[in-house]
Amino acid sequence: MPRLIIGNLFTDETAGDPRLLPAAYLQNAALGAQMVLWFAKDSDVVLLPAMPEDAVLDYITGMTGTDRSTLRVVVPPPGVSGTGLLTADRLANKSFRDELAAALDGVTVENVFPMTPDASVATLATDLGLEAALPGHAFFSQGGSVFVNSKAIFRTVAAGAGVPIPAGGVCTNQTDAHLAISRLFDQGLPAMLKRDFSSGGFGNEVVSSVPGIEPVGAGRTVVLPDSAAIEAYLQERWDWLSVGGRYAVVVERYVQGSRAIFAEFQITDRGPVFLEQGALYFAPVADAQVIPAPDLPRSALTQLIASTVRLCEALHAVGYRGPISADAILVPDGQVLFTEYNGRITGSTHAHAVIGNEIVGPNFGESVVVAEYIHWKVPSFQAAVQRLTESSLAYDPATKSGVVLTKAPSPDGTVRYCAIAENLVGAAQLKDKVESLFTEARPDSAIPAGLSGPDRHGPQEEEA
Amino acid sequence: MPRLIIGNLFTDETAGDPRLLPAAYLQNAALGAQMVLWFAKDSDVVLLPAMPEDAVLDYITGMTGTDRSTLRVVVPPPGVSGTGLLTADRLANKSFRDELAAALDGVTVENVFPMTPDASVATLATDLGLEAALPGHAFFSQGGSVFVNSKAIFRTVAAGAGVPIPAGGVCTNQTDAHLAISRLFDQGLPAMLKRDFSSGGFGNEVVSSVPGIEPVGAGRTVVLPDSAAIEAYLQERWDWLSVGGRYAVVVERYVQGSRAIFAEFQITDRGPVFLEQGALYFAPVADAQVIPAPDLPRSALTQLIASTVRLCEALHAVGYRGPISADAILVPDGQVLFTEYNGRITGSTHAHAVIGNEIVGPNFGESVVVAEYIHWKVPSFQAAVQRLTESSLAYDPATKSGVVLTKAPSPDGTVRYCAIAENLVGAAQLKDKVESLFTEARPDSAIPAGLSGPDRHGPQEEEA
Repeated sequence: MPRLIIGNLFTDETAGDPRLLPAAYLQNAALGAQMVLWFAKDSDVVLLPAMPEDAVLDYITGMTGTDRSTLRVVVPPPGVSGTGLLTADRLANKSFRDELAAALDGVTVENVFPMTPDASVATLATDLGLEAALPGHAFFSQGGSVFVNSKAIFRTVAAGAGVPIPAGGVCTNQTDAHLAISRLFDQGLPAMLKRDFSSGGFGNEVVSSVPGIEPVGAGRTVVLPDSAAIEAYLQERWDWLSVGGRYAVVVERYVQGSRAIFAEFQITDRGPVFLEQGALYFAPVADAQVIPAPDLPRSALTQLIASTVRLCEALHAVGYRGPISADAILVPDGQVLFTEYNGRITGSTHAHAVIGNEIVGPNFGESVVVAEYIHWKVPSFQAAVQRLTESSLAYDPATKSGVVLTKAPSPDGTVRYCAIAENLVGAAQLKDKVESLFTEARPDSAIPAGLSGPDRHGPQEEEA
Repeated sequence: MPRLIIGNLFTDETAGDPRLLPAAYLQNAALGAQMVLWFAKDSDVVLLPAMPEDAVLDYITGMTGTDRSTLRVVVPPPGVSGTGLLTADRLANKSFRDELAAALDGVTVENVFPMTPDASVATLATDLGLEAALPGHAFFSQGGSVFVNSKAIFRTVAAGAGVPIPAGGVCTNQTDAHLAISRLFDQGLPAMLKRDFSSGGFGNEVVSSVPGIEPVGAGRTVVLPDSAAIEAYLQERWDWLSVGGRYAVVVERYVQGSRAIFAEFQITDRGPVFLEQGALYFAPVADAQVIPAPDLPRSALTQLIASTVRLCEALHAVGYRGPISADAILVPDGQVLFTEYNGRITGSTHAHAVIGNEIVGPNFGESVVVAEYIHWKVPSFQAAVQRLTESSLAYDPATKSGVVLTKAPSPDGTVRYCAIAENLVGAAQLKDKVESLFTEARPDSAIPAGLSGPDRHGPQEEEA
């Protein structure tokens, strides 16, 4: 039975007032939403904020073996924020509802599958008589998407559930943030400050009382030698950190030399089901992911999975149903400390659930790694597809290796792609070959694998 | 063993930036914080934002049988918001910490007992080596107090836990609020709009598409006949509703003819323990409470308790420990729908846990009602005590009836008091006598019992 797939990447609930978002953000959001096409099967109905290029639709359905002619892609008229997001007003639009009713006429929808489980999706499901097809409907109808995507609420729930987190706090005002930063500085530790709903490291800054701290997973390091400097910094940056006073700000111990890892589970009525784990790379912001995480020590994997299950049990108890991705850092002493959760289809889900599990095949992680990189500059999507084929770099099921494009080009002309190879060295070699297809030898081709890749949790701020 | 009692009524986490709060709010907050004195036992250390009047300290300890000379009341130097709140900066103050260390020298603190379980309380407990004495410490250290006092998060958790709530939604922007209001209006229903952290009905407004809807539990009713009127209303009021864009706004079906009831539980490591239930009265904002709720139908009581336990189980799973008060409405068709929770010592806790259970005695609700009223205008606290005694209206353990003052006079010269009597009629008769002690016969003495009383959840906005 078909599904109703909703490509609502970063909607109004978590992105703030959609009327205030910058144009570049919105343009990217519309492209990011297309990644939901990876999940489309025959006869699914797909809602998107803007119509994808034919080349993208052909390519993705070609890779997944979905009969494109059976898909119905429905795009509502523009809303208060234009065509970048599937906002509540667009999903409520009368002419869209009529078009959707026509598309669903005689169709029994088995499952409502949103990218982000916004309240507007719950409202749509109610109006279509599909509440039962959206697990967690009641939770989502009352702001559940905020709950499972807020870094502030994450820290509350994780701490309460006994999941290890880096020292720090959740600050609703500058005074408390000043105290939280000072407490870390007094112990000789730097801090990372985080915007509540940003992703890929674009909403983070490292602050330190001493110079020489390299930012990883953050835009920059700011040196604040004394209390007056902390106060001046907060005065200047609070508006940005709190998104104009709208959200709490996370202050967290910054641990140099950590590895970023994650685990994704599906929370069903019966409880959490493991999906996949992987590693994230930042240079200094989100840049690559590798699934499964290469060379992860057994003890780190054990901690990652055991704690993610505790987190999932807590979310299960409050009524969340759906995918959950828990991010953590493996710190030099071997501890796994959790840094956020994401209750949505993340920028990793397509890579393991579809490209890994379906295109490569079940248990893909036993024989290959899927490494996704973010910055291949191409003339067009179609040209990229063509060159990959001509150069025999396109994914080949026979060898279980090669390259899969994952997203339409961003406004800066770069595409995301997965390099599938026996191991990380093989993926890095593929990356070198791919990224020189349209250029002369590039000076950065010597950068180690995994240090140039995607913003995993959505392209929210890639160019914003 | 003594406890460390912290009178932090509405702290910076839930009240917003303390530097921005109006003076009247702060003055009232300091008085409201004194109600924590009801919980003080011999040798307890009590932190308060400002030193209480001697008359108040004498009266409350006299009523509870606590040896006042063994109590240590510690007041930190003023903070960013002056002396109204026990804000994080005050609890971190160096000279306060020295004084507190001296007060605690040689003392083994059994329990840290905050009015509001703010992160600053968790920080204090950590610094004093008392983490284990504050159940729920980890949860509170990461913003748990926001979690258990937010009306927005309440709706998410309640819906997710299967607890019935009135139709409506949690709105982060005007567009979504407009849609949520319209959905109710389209069904011919009025709506109540709620600020996330206000209390006593002071943060609520009723909106209706037709005239004639009386506001109960809200400041006023606004008639919005069409979509343009909704838009104009939101444009004008959004800043107030969202506290300058800081919080989400709850839009909820407003059910005329409902009764307001509540249940309080204590969430322990092992799960929820029932404390008490009662009824709230509004005229049109918070005005009285009666414990236990008079004439509550058996089916309503069953629903109230069963659903509150579900709510408690969800909060237990995310790590909350401490008191929880769940507010609900009993609607005319007999359903109990939940409207908020409060994870703190509420304006009801002293009335049942101390005045009821300890002063009247265990199972007090089998033989008396405790009715608390809010607006007795008095020359001074001491004068009120004296007149109650002279007129033989003061509480008499022999008859288990009479009046107990509960709080120092507000800036408007009114005190809160509990009238304890065999039944509600008796309490109302006490009220009439009490409120005429300093006046000639008052024209409003004919108002039915229960329609003039206290803001139960703290005097936050009584005069703000």
